[in-house]
Amino acid sequence: MRTQVGIIGAGPAGLLLSHLLHLAGVDSVVLELRDRAYVEARVRAGVLEQPTVELLREAGVGERMDARGLPHDGISLRFDGADHRIDFRALTGRRITVYGQQEVVKDLIARRLADGGDLRFGVSDVAVDPRAATVSFRDSAGARQILRCDVLAGCDGFHGITRDAIPAGALTVHQHTYPFAWLGVLAEAPPSHHELIYTYHPRGFALHSMRSPTITRLYLQVPPDERIEDWSDRRIWDELHTRLAADGFTLAEGPILEKGVTGMRSFVVAPMRHERLFLAGDAAHIVPPTGAKGMNLAIADVRRLSVALTALLTGNDPGPAERYGADCLARVWRAQHFSWWMTSMLHTFPGHDPFQRELQLAQLRYTASSTAAATSLAENYVGLPYSP
Amino acid sequence: MRTQVGIIGAGPAGLLLSHLLHLAGVDSVVLELRDRAYVEARVRAGVLEQPTVELLREAGVGERMDARGLPHDGISLRFDGADHRIDFRALTGRRITVYGQQEVVKDLIARRLADGGDLRFGVSDVAVDPRAATVSFRDSAGARQILRCDVLAGCDGFHGITRDAIPAGALTVHQHTYPFAWLGVLAEAPPSHHELIYTYHPRGFALHSMRSPTITRLYLQVPPDERIEDWSDRRIWDELHTRLAADGFTLAEGPILEKGVTGMRSFVVAPMRHERLFLAGDAAHIVPPTGAKGMNLAIADVRRLSVALTALLTGNDPGPAERYGADCLARVWRAQHFSWWMTSMLHTFPGHDPFQRELQLAQLRYTASSTAAATSLAENYVGLPYSP
Repeated sequence: MRTQVGIIGAGPAGLLLSHLLHLAGVDSVVLELRDRAYVEARVRAGVLEQPTVELLREAGVGERMDARGLPHDGISLRFDGADHRIDFRALTGRRITVYGQQEVVKDLIARRLADGGDLRFGVSDVAVDPRAATVSFRDSAGARQILRCDVLAGCDGFHGITRDAIPAGALTVHQHTYPFAWLGVLAEAPPSHHELIYTYHPRGFALHSMRSPTITRLYLQVPPDERIEDWSDRRIWDELHTRLAADGFTLAEGPILEKGVTGMRSFVVAPMRHERLFLAGDAAHIVPPTGAKGMNLAIADVRRLSVALTALLTGNDPGPAERYGADCLARVWRAQHFSWWMTSMLHTFPGHDPFQRELQLAQLRYTASSTAAATSLAENYVGLPYSP
Repeated sequence: MRTQVGIIGAGPAGLLLSHLLHLAGVDSVVLELRDRAYVEARVRAGVLEQPTVELLREAGVGERMDARGLPHDGISLRFDGADHRIDFRALTGRRITVYGQQEVVKDLIARRLADGGDLRFGVSDVAVDPRAATVSFRDSAGARQILRCDVLAGCDGFHGITRDAIPAGALTVHQHTYPFAWLGVLAEAPPSHHELIYTYHPRGFALHSMRSPTITRLYLQVPPDERIEDWSDRRIWDELHTRLAADGFTLAEGPILEKGVTGMRSFVVAPMRHERLFLAGDAAHIVPPTGAKGMNLAIADVRRLSVALTALLTGNDPGPAERYGADCLARVWRAQHFSWWMTSMLHTFPGHDPFQRELQLAQLRYTASSTAAATSLAENYVGLPYSP
């Protein structure tokens, strides 16, 4: 088996890369451990920044997003029991679109299959050789296969296998672990407000979000080692009511469809290339979810990677591929800083003294009252323009 | 001896308060431990924000400041060996004025004396009674005196005695100590650049500033317990040359007139009033000098205090005096946050890991490249407008 680009992972990064390469006339094969139904149902990120929306639209995979995504012109910061709206539209002329990662995945799978793309779900025992650019795996029937490629793309997420195929000494790792986690629930209830509400409360951060007009997504800051078994649905709703309390706001309850606890971590590896293996998205970097940057960053990576690999494989120009990681890292560190900043402003920290808590409130009040400070938040949240 | 307002401390806060009260028809006496020559030569802060400049001008004590102060339309952030100018004028329409604290003090002393003000220098054994509003002290001849007042103003700085006259249980203290100090020098050398240069360097922060066209003020981040005896003039210049190095920049040397090490601290007490004693300026709050906010905050306090005391003593309206501390604290915490933010962005921190260092660089690069972020820095640095 041969292809030009062997892509490991059928999340938004791997699938979009395969699609963008196809548009540029480059062949690829996508290998995915899970089955198609699983990846199409996997609830993860849900906020698309404007550059992501424009890229998907330009790539011809934005039709359902435009029909079903929820455009939002702002968010609210809720603290001291009141809302302070950050008006993205007025401050930046741009907006975000609430559209689940699994919907992006569905759109991309449908399009790749319609275009005759080669997607292999349910593979196992995957191993990559960065120097030879080969992948060995078992197909969904259990047969051993070897995929020979010109280059490989590791789009298999933070827990994937491609990053581990690079010798440890070749990578520099930057990371930071936060002293809390998010308990997230998906509830069959209409959103209680038409936009996202980021809440700073003395008991901890809370977030009101949504996936559709009938599905609410809610989060609570909890200790990092919290067990989901200790949180009955009743306890979750009670805590949400307490933290999200504000004049004129009523939180709508409904059956909880999913719940889980996710740790908060910042992680960056460099370089993003080793031999003939290129890393993209979560395989190379993780942000805490507070800034809603994870999937958007993955999409920015593969936008750049598709151009670089096209130049390398069809234009005989290795320059963009050589600069790939360095070019990505400026946006990665901007997103890391923004995500750290949002996280620091909105969460309670176990070790904080009263001085640090007052600084947090001063930051919140300033962000809510200064046009310049609100614009800083807004321009990062809606997505800074791609650099060339 | 009797007066309406007994003011402890003849720094910018105490002197300006006395002057503003005089303009409003309220009598005061100012008591100061040091002699006049000392306070007129004491080199401290040197950057006036625009609201400070306007207030001094409106109060009729801005003539020499307007003639001799150096208006600056911006500052530079220097990192990665290059300058990134923050253009205050273009971003906010406002500017700063470089004019030493001791010059403000000279202007205010001259004006108070010309107006027949009662300033007592060289007093000793000062003790205040917040409930009785009395001050006992020895005058410069050593004679014991009692000053009976309607109210007292504690303008005697962080190490003064007025704050300690308040029962500890009545005050809430917020504080933070930074793991470094500033080694400052005053040099007889023309400034090497026409504006301030705030430098982030892997060896630590450095600041190029000035007091006049012939006097340069320079600072180096050093460990908090650094002994000035360990820093020869040669060592100081060598370290300044290393940290301030940039293309096209030459640091002019000259005889060092003064040198010293100052710790970095954030400190806020609340409330700012106890019984009939009101605290203002450094007596109530300290900021690290990175944001150049200390003297400006003291002046914002006494502006508010002069209005409050005038209403209390001549208008029979206790409202503004009751709200005094709470009204001040919004600006105090804004300045605390800004000073902490500037300090955090520009210094190296002993415990920082590589991830945190990359975040600092991401913050610097963003501040230098985003109009919104640069405007945030600029609007704080030039001084946010006074609230009513």
